[in-house]
Amino acid sequence: MNLSHTHLHEIDAVANQLADAARAVILPFFRSPSLTQDNKLAGGYDPVTEADRAAEQEMRGLLAQMRPDDAILGEELGYTSGTTGLTWVLDPIDGTRGFVSGTPTWGVLIAVRDAIGPFYGLIDQPYIGERFIGTPTAAHMTGPSGPSPLTTLPPRALSQATVFTTFPEVGSPAEREAFQQVAGQAKLTRYGMDCYAYALLASGQIDLVIEAGLQAYDIQAPIAVVQAAGGIVTDWDGGPAHEGGRAIAAANADIHKQALDILKSCGQ
Amino acid sequence: MNLSHTHLHEIDAVANQLADAARAVILPFFRSPSLTQDNKLAGGYDPVTEADRAAEQEMRGLLAQMRPDDAILGEELGYTSGTTGLTWVLDPIDGTRGFVSGTPTWGVLIAVRDAIGPFYGLIDQPYIGERFIGTPTAAHMTGPSGPSPLTTLPPRALSQATVFTTFPEVGSPAEREAFQQVAGQAKLTRYGMDCYAYALLASGQIDLVIEAGLQAYDIQAPIAVVQAAGGIVTDWDGGPAHEGGRAIAAANADIHKQALDILKSCGQ
Repeated sequence: MNLSHTHLHEIDAVANQLADAARAVILPFFRSPSLTQDNKLAGGYDPVTEADRAAEQEMRGLLAQMRPDDAILGEELGYTSGTTGLTWVLDPIDGTRGFVSGTPTWGVLIAVRDAIGPFYGLIDQPYIGERFIGTPTAAHMTGPSGPSPLTTLPPRALSQATVFTTFPEVGSPAEREAFQQVAGQAKLTRYGMDCYAYALLASGQIDLVIEAGLQAYDIQAPIAVVQAAGGIVTDWDGGPAHEGGRAIAAANADIHKQALDILKSCGQ
Repeated sequence: MNLSHTHLHEIDAVANQLADAARAVILPFFRSPSLTQDNKLAGGYDPVTEADRAAEQEMRGLLAQMRPDDAILGEELGYTSGTTGLTWVLDPIDGTRGFVSGTPTWGVLIAVRDAIGPFYGLIDQPYIGERFIGTPTAAHMTGPSGPSPLTTLPPRALSQATVFTTFPEVGSPAEREAFQQVAGQAKLTRYGMDCYAYALLASGQIDLVIEAGLQAYDIQAPIAVVQAAGGIVTDWDGGPAHEGGRAIAAANADIHKQALDILKSCGQ
């Protein structure tokens, strides 16, 4: 990645505009009566998909104006090629189960990647009004209590650590078992926060997020945010995680190694 | 309960003042570095307990001024008797595990009960700025999207329902098994939201909350809020739940019966 400071500033400005636009599109659907009633019907109109698609179309429209030569990978509308070597990776509503339950822990994910991987990430929680951003030169958030830098936790023993996951909802039985081996040694395990867990990791609130069954658009923004805040994200073999699948995000290299050793010892 | 409209209005005003005061005391602790670092040390200073106690002391101080003859039951400081037949039931931070993890799903709980049970309930989420209130004559909330009435969901089949719980963190193995029998028939199960789950139930977002191992101060505010919004809360035998233990909170009598029948069939 050879981005000038000016170029990065422009990407940040565009990403914030996309997130603002997604907020405006999605919020009217959140906790709406149509959402709680209709989406439980078999077939037909699905307001979550509707919100997802409408937000992605809005973001794609803005990119067509402001960044017409970049590629786009979106959860709902797939891949559109570009010529700059940069790809905008969009997940308008990460955490659909949380969204349909009314919990404010879903998020809008926006990442920008080059040939190596994601270098810019934005996690937005529209209802609370929180936005977490990680770039090659900064990691910061804004929310109800104002702006704040993002810094991950320093090393501590796994027995003192807090682990977040989407299990038991996703993953194979073997993956769940491997996760349980780590969770069993941790102090506290919490479930079902989706992208919000990575925001908490970047905020220095928790030590580990361990997941499986991810898509590229689920994990690229979290990777950039966590890494900018001082954390580390890999797959369960210690390799790159940005194409999806299994991911372990850690506050620091020490707690990453403690957990990865256990996952590896389970043959995962 | 024979409360005049004026009397109820006064109780509501006092409860809101208590909640405002608790917000101001607790928020500086939430996501603070001292919280994430120090409370994981064995023994000594515990900032969660510190926030809990400081908030309860603040609320007790206000009650001493404004409602000196009512009784108080608080999580941290126990029971103080009164002469009016009314008891203020206070849980300054419900959802400690969520609090220390940085998730915005803990809450301040304030209930007022008489000889029959809780008739006024307030669930406050200070970080988001949400407040859910249930009284004998009203059920409403305020939050980032403005004020809104609270109404629970209409009946639907358990196979279409969303169930929240604090399991697997609490409860005996038999209780967990009984819960799993219900969850296995539901469409969606979500974990670890503590009092926020009852706020979502009252908001018409979810169908059921099933828990065990509760204290009286955990459940009395949720009971009043859920019932005011049209829901029903009992123990696992269909009796009153306000003294704690096991609780099943349902959006309506129909889904309550569907779930209760399963819990009973498990011998719970």
